[in-house]
Amino acid sequence: MRTLIITGGSFDRAFAASFYKKNVYDYVIAVDGGLDYCTESGIRPDMIVGDFDTHGNDDLDGYAREGITVRRFIPEKDDTDTEIAIHEAVKRGNETDVLGAFGGRLDHTLANIHNLYFALANGIRARLVSADNIVFLENKPFEITREYFPLKYVSFVPFAGEVTGMKLKGFKYTLDGYTLKPGYSRCISNELTDDTAYVSMDSGILIAINSADSGL
Amino acid sequence: MRTLIITGGSFDRAFAASFYKKNVYDYVIAVDGGLDYCTESGIRPDMIVGDFDTHGNDDLDGYAREGITVRRFIPEKDDTDTEIAIHEAVKRGNETDVLGAFGGRLDHTLANIHNLYFALANGIRARLVSADNIVFLENKPFEITREYFPLKYVSFVPFAGEVTGMKLKGFKYTLDGYTLKPGYSRCISNELTDDTAYVSMDSGILIAINSADSGL
Repeated sequence: MRTLIITGGSFDRAFAASFYKKNVYDYVIAVDGGLDYCTESGIRPDMIVGDFDTHGNDDLDGYAREGITVRRFIPEKDDTDTEIAIHEAVKRGNETDVLGAFGGRLDHTLANIHNLYFALANGIRARLVSADNIVFLENKPFEITREYFPLKYVSFVPFAGEVTGMKLKGFKYTLDGYTLKPGYSRCISNELTDDTAYVSMDSGILIAINSADSGL
Repeated sequence: MRTLIITGGSFDRAFAASFYKKNVYDYVIAVDGGLDYCTESGIRPDMIVGDFDTHGNDDLDGYAREGITVRRFIPEKDDTDTEIAIHEAVKRGNETDVLGAFGGRLDHTLANIHNLYFALANGIRARLVSADNIVFLENKPFEITREYFPLKYVSFVPFAGEVTGMKLKGFKYTLDGYTLKPGYSRCISNELTDDTAYVSMDSGILIAINSADSGL
């Protein structure tokens, strides 16, 4: 079971369309401006979340009549919309992808990375996905496949303090018992050499990032 | 005394030009692709750092003859170029601004935020600066002025674990003894109400972010 969250951040519409085509989701949550993208693209969300200050009540009532769950919040809650959507996805127990989590504002991007922690703490894998960056958090040994991380570079950054006993196998640069400390930009720009690579640690939480040079 | 680091990430050239005009720097370090921007813009760096795989040795020898310090690294060291530049700035004891630290690749952006830690640990304030985002780290009480953080929103994200006893004064949303934990997107989209606002904490390291909606 998989959930797709479409948030109001900026994203490449061509990428979003091809990503939506390639993946199958059981449940779609549109967050605030993400609803406009759904409408444009003919995607019917199962839930919409946001303050919708640009939408009238009539619109929202219409969605509710169509059987779409509407969760409306006051604008002061705006910045936790994606958090609320991730909580909803986690409640459903679904692996979750989030489109539109990156944009111009770096504080929103960092908040969205932090929002992944709720999923991790509840044993659900959630990813932030764009054309150039795919991000998830992990605190236990895991595999990375080329299918899950299709872009060229694989990087690791510590999430909330150091990550001890890191081991990397199946990568261009391997590690065996490394401590990744905050403040050091190691573990950037690694690459998979095998179709499936292995990552483990004794303690700590990793931000795993799959990225490509965008040429921007 | 202030140092400007110009790195090879993507940045708005018009913003960079106006930012360079408004600020006075004693020392300029060009990192890898940032050297091209310097050449285009008639900025003479005092030091250049990078692997310069797109530049011939002759070019670099030319810079050296002009009295510019050249620090050349093998390409495998590429991703720590900005780190090396920050270390050089810290050695000089200078407050430091970094242009070009944000770009398409989120792993580079996160690595650049982590690179600020070396400056913090050595008592030097360093900022990553773009048209839409200004970022620094802090682990002791500090002031924020509108001059230092001119954009609309001020957000705080914990850097390497929780930040305890947070107090905010002079902001739209104030705090008095709050614990900011990793995994929660609180402290996003605050705003200054006074020309100088105050932030303090009992323990922990904050990522302070000044941002504006880019309209992208």
